[in-house]
Amino acid sequence: MFRKFLVEFIGTFFLVLTVGCTVFSSGNGVIPAIAIGVILMVMVYAGGHVSGGHYNPAVSMAAAMRGALPWRDIVPYWIAQIAGGMVAALLVKYLVVVTPAENMAQFNLSSLIIAEFLFTFALCYVVLHVATARNNEGNSFYGLAIGGTVLAGIFATAGLCYGAFNPAVAAGLWTMGAAIWKIVWITGLTNLIAGTLAGLVYKITSND
Amino acid sequence: MFRKFLVEFIGTFFLVLTVGCTVFSSGNGVIPAIAIGVILMVMVYAGGHVSGGHYNPAVSMAAAMRGALPWRDIVPYWIAQIAGGMVAALLVKYLVVVTPAENMAQFNLSSLIIAEFLFTFALCYVVLHVATARNNEGNSFYGLAIGGTVLAGIFATAGLCYGAFNPAVAAGLWTMGAAIWKIVWITGLTNLIAGTLAGLVYKITSND
Amino acid sequence: MFRKFLVEFIGTFFLVLTVGCTVFSSGNGVIPAIAIGVILMVMVYAGGHVSGGHYNPAVSMAAAMRGALPWRDIVPYWIAQIAGGMVAALLVKYLVVVTPAENMAQFNLSSLIIAEFLFTFALCYVVLHVATARNNEGNSFYGLAIGGTVLAGIFATAGLCYGAFNPAVAAGLWTMGAAIWKIVWITGLTNLIAGTLAGLVYKITSND
Amino acid sequence: MFRKFLVEFIGTFFLVLTVGCTVFSSGNGVIPAIAIGVILMVMVYAGGHVSGGHYNPAVSMAAAMRGALPWRDIVPYWIAQIAGGMVAALLVKYLVVVTPAENMAQFNLSSLIIAEFLFTFALCYVVLHVATARNNEGNSFYGLAIGGTVLAGIFATAGLCYGAFNPAVAAGLWTMGAAIWKIVWITGLTNLIAGTLAGLVYKITSND
Repeated sequence: MFRKFLVEFIGTFFLVLTVGCTVFSSGNGVIPAIAIGVILMVMVYAGGHVSGGHYNPAVSMAAAMRGALPWRDIVPYWIAQIAGGMVAALLVKYLVVVTPAENMAQFNLSSLIIAEFLFTFALCYVVLHVATARNNEGNSFYGLAIGGTVLAGIFATAGLCYGAFNPAVAAGLWTMGAAIWKIVWITGLTNLIAGTLAGLVYKITSND
Repeated sequence: MFRKFLVEFIGTFFLVLTVGCTVFSSGNGVIPAIAIGVILMVMVYAGGHVSGGHYNPAVSMAAAMRGALPWRDIVPYWIAQIAGGMVAALLVKYLVVVTPAENMAQFNLSSLIIAEFLFTFALCYVVLHVATARNNEGNSFYGLAIGGTVLAGIFATAGLCYGAFNPAVAAGLWTMGAAIWKIVWITGLTNLIAGTLAGLVYKITSND
Repeated sequence: MFRKFLVEFIGTFFLVLTVGCTVFSSGNGVIPAIAIGVILMVMVYAGGHVSGGHYNPAVSMAAAMRGALPWRDIVPYWIAQIAGGMVAALLVKYLVVVTPAENMAQFNLSSLIIAEFLFTFALCYVVLHVATARNNEGNSFYGLAIGGTVLAGIFATAGLCYGAFNPAVAAGLWTMGAAIWKIVWITGLTNLIAGTLAGLVYKITSND
Repeated sequence: MFRKFLVEFIGTFFLVLTVGCTVFSSGNGVIPAIAIGVILMVMVYAGGHVSGGHYNPAVSMAAAMRGALPWRDIVPYWIAQIAGGMVAALLVKYLVVVTPAENMAQFNLSSLIIAEFLFTFALCYVVLHVATARNNEGNSFYGLAIGGTVLAGIFATAGLCYGAFNPAVAAGLWTMGAAIWKIVWITGLTNLIAGTLAGLVYKITSND
């Protein structure tokens, strides 16, 4: 269990570190989406064989719904993920100049919820199909598909939401001081609901 | 069958959602081509083991020509794909400001037909070789190759056509109000003819 | 044999079509390198199981040196590749406005030879290792590695040479009217010498 | 052994050649990070089956710590890597105009050490998990994960350090005249310490 906890911590740490370092130092071009999608892919490939490579409480929720993660492991996973994200966030504050929440783009609340919901759903749906479906056992594409979903999702939802699709990333943005608490909990809750629904839809769409 | 229908609906939904959200909010840089190619790759990897992961009536046509899809399934596939694209289009209209068709670039009709034909042919030729050829069974690259064809095709045909290579995408653009009906049906028909021809060329170039 | 010929023709056709359409319509940003590397990757994955997926006379030379292509097949391969490139070039002239050779960047001749030599060597060295080495049989990464070499090579040699690494691409640029004959034959000859040398270095570095 | 030495030399040569050619001719957009990550991926796929495809003294250190490289091979590997990097650097000086060290960005020393440490650690952690863990044997994603780590790391640490994550790259920058000796040895030493630590953390996080 400790191995899994440590792998989830390390992976989420590098995910949130990359979020913070690219969002606040490279402006709003293509760099954050590419870097974030790629680091997630990398960490999924590195840690997938140990912990499943979730790095995301919504993904752990979807995995538990589908029976790929024991329910008793979900709280330790969440703690490791949130802790990794928060430690990374503190380091981001030291390394780069974080834009304060009040200077960040304002979002329309209903658009934010729809956008976070849709791509978190897509992410969890993709994770369950590529990394847990029996038909796809032994494939080499799971990390590429998972990282790619976040890359495409960040591009698609630009201007609509933070493009977190992940409560640990939302918590990291709050720890950096780049997001206000209200948006963070709405984002995180939306992500968890989307993960839950993706677990149900997986059961309908898969023949395992 | 319902599982296949739902997977085709979901995949085409996210494809057209990404088309609409990136084309109308990120200007005309590299973002739409990358995001669209990547989301297609992702959905092919997620749903390929259930429905084949077509998300495109022209690909379903090519698959039927090659014997990889029963002819009786082609109409349900087309309905799922067009429906997924249209529902996504309605959501796009809610989320972003769509450029009306009359303000979109005007295309030379013969160039549009040639460009849509060539890359839809390439797409269907690639799909049949990487996802249905016996020699390539069990590979992990099929989604990357399929998404990559669309990414390269959008870059190559910029300014010549919509870069749909897919009647469901064309229908989605029409539903959004971003394309006029005349261009949509010419595009869709060209796509279907290209898919049919790719099915024939596959039979000549493969030894299955 | 006809199947192999047709697959080499189609693959080189789409490679040179993508070269022409992206170089002359998207300016000199990141688009040509990405689109060209990706279309090569795609065509290698699609046709590799039929013809080896060379699409490049220098790669066919390297494959023949290594014993992966019978010497009697090399002339038909070259014909298919050059023909595919030239037909694509004629279509490019119809679809986009090609910059005439005299308005293209001028290159330093010794830098051009070094740059074309190095990355054609890298390309052929990579092809032989990822697509013909016994240790790597059955892998799914060969197309990604081959397309990636061209992508990185175009970025690295920008301003030094055409970044062809391929006599069929050089012949295509000449057919389009975008390159003068002197540069084309120097490029093509350099590519073939690099391919020959890569075949020899492969034998030293591999244990097949 | 000579085969391994030559493969490490060739791979590091093309890595540092790509670093030099893209950093000094394409400005500071997305090109260097993409080209460098991709050429590393390519060389890992090409040479991995011969030498392990390290191209990086810090990775060789991590591999030795984990037991994937005999300790007696580490000095020859380092020599091949540094030599490949330095020969490439001399060629870079001939091909492009290198920005002299005094005109390069100045870095905050503690940020530089943290940034080089973190992503060299990530790189070595990923290499050990994807290329040496028994659970991941026979996968096709190792090169993608390794190259992707460097790509994401360069984006994430822009402005904080050279983004070398590799003493052979640091030595190459010094040979080009683009880095001062003090920064080079601090970078290289930090890389080696990070590699050593990654070897230890691998043992905790893996079940081999």
